[in-house]
Amino acid sequence: MVTQTDFRVRYSETDGQRRAHHSHYPVWFEMGRADFCRQAGFDYKHLENTGFFLVVARLECQYKSPLEYDDLVRVETRLISLSRKLMTFSYRVINITQNEKLAGEGETLLVCVDREGRPASLPPDVSERLQSCMTPSKGKIHASLSGG
Amino acid sequence: MVTQTDFRVRYSETDGQRRAHHSHYPVWFEMGRADFCRQAGFDYKHLENTGFFLVVARLECQYKSPLEYDDLVRVETRLISLSRKLMTFSYRVINITQNEKLAGEGETLLVCVDREGRPASLPPDVSERLQSCMTPSKGKIHASLSGG
Amino acid sequence: MVTQTDFRVRYSETDGQRRAHHSHYPVWFEMGRADFCRQAGFDYKHLENTGFFLVVARLECQYKSPLEYDDLVRVETRLISLSRKLMTFSYRVINITQNEKLAGEGETLLVCVDREGRPASLPPDVSERLQSCMTPSKGKIHASLSGG
Amino acid sequence: MVTQTDFRVRYSETDGQRRAHHSHYPVWFEMGRADFCRQAGFDYKHLENTGFFLVVARLECQYKSPLEYDDLVRVETRLISLSRKLMTFSYRVINITQNEKLAGEGETLLVCVDREGRPASLPPDVSERLQSCMTPSKGKIHASLSGG
Repeated sequence: MVTQTDFRVRYSETDGQRRAHHSHYPVWFEMGRADFCRQAGFDYKHLENTGFFLVVARLECQYKSPLEYDDLVRVETRLISLSRKLMTFSYRVINITQNEKLAGEGETLLVCVDREGRPASLPPDVSERLQSCMTPSKGKIHASLSGG
Repeated sequence: MVTQTDFRVRYSETDGQRRAHHSHYPVWFEMGRADFCRQAGFDYKHLENTGFFLVVARLECQYKSPLEYDDLVRVETRLISLSRKLMTFSYRVINITQNEKLAGEGETLLVCVDREGRPASLPPDVSERLQSCMTPSKGKIHASLSGG
Repeated sequence: MVTQTDFRVRYSETDGQRRAHHSHYPVWFEMGRADFCRQAGFDYKHLENTGFFLVVARLECQYKSPLEYDDLVRVETRLISLSRKLMTFSYRVINITQNEKLAGEGETLLVCVDREGRPASLPPDVSERLQSCMTPSKGKIHASLSGG
Repeated sequence: MVTQTDFRVRYSETDGQRRAHHSHYPVWFEMGRADFCRQAGFDYKHLENTGFFLVVARLECQYKSPLEYDDLVRVETRLISLSRKLMTFSYRVINITQNEKLAGEGETLLVCVDREGRPASLPPDVSERLQSCMTPSKGKIHASLSGG
């Protein structure tokens, strides 16, 4: 499954170079994850209410071309690896306004933790839903993890 | 009491006009409040741990002159009104880099609430400490509240 | 004219109280303004490219009820006063997820400036378009300005 | 050279998990870079005024332990690789409040560009100053670049 999340670059997200500041890409990745979970059949807010939290353990991002104020942006989100407590999402940031030019790519490794912050297994129903939506892929973070 | 909080404008805080985006002033006011509380003898984090939260109910801000990246900024914070559950802070934002030019002024009205979000009286010791640090003043929010 | 801008509260916009941090309301107001201008027939980005910038001179915000992560939010935007160089927008922030409960209200006074930051008259075509979309109203900022 | 940049976690930087949101680490890295440049003998703002801009091309971040509101944080910044147009900085984020516990580590690859956004060689004096402050190291980004 690939989900699409569309939005416009906010003025407050631009910086003195008249481009979206690079620190907003992780925020957009997170919006992509939220939509991915929703389409996979659960919402992240509910997961937190049941006592499970997904925490970002690693982040990797490559910036390919600048985004300007008001550009229409699409984040494509894929789940590329999944284990009991870990999952890796990958993202493509596409500038719809500029002929769907690739603006960036990234990955995040997330850990499931309980209310005390200890690593915890994902609830089985959540795990199954995610499993059925996965697009297995090596990825940069995954590769370096298995190599490490 | 007047407290001073100094910092530099972050690159991420600038926008396409090469100025600090106006939405950061409320963030700086909050930093000013944190330092004010600390110098008044308690820290806000501890207050939250004891079950009391200060919530912003009103915000008023006037922008006087632009701030640029890396400008050294000083926020001066005063407590101008205080009741059992409400308090008003006022702020002056000063551009130290530009001859202490006034960059902005503002006020925030805060309400003390409990864990359920209901208005609650400030703990007596906190209230006393704040009382002794107050600089009574009419203020814009206060004036419009008493008139309303 | 009243425009509606819908979005969800981002996780990054929440704070330790599990609510949207108050500093994001001005950002949402700005998104509302952008949509208002678009529906009035011009886009703000184009205005900047022709050498005119709208700068926030005053901001007033009242917080009515908390917004949580993932809540669907609607910002209603109105233009309530307009002169050659100044305009006042008013905003209502509505929590669609919570039965359209009012989450906040606000106003911003904007000044049109040129590339050097000097107050400048709005381009006539922009001014006419805005004029035809105005909902004249006293407002809080307007009232205090005319009284001052 | 290793530079140290100290600050407190802002309330607005926390999220619903009562921790600093992961998207702020890149902002803190940038503050670390600014201080590094200043101590290397030039300021980044001046560099931009002379027509050179440093753009983040890659970002890598690992999150080790959570940071809470008001925690005193130190970012240690090193320059670990430098060529005519590229440089890699590495960062360690240390929680001073919690016994100097490591909160995170990261790297950013930056490209020097001119006003038109084209890759450009760093001005010689800037390049020399940076060269003399470098701590050569393999790094994660560097390694994967040379391998790619």
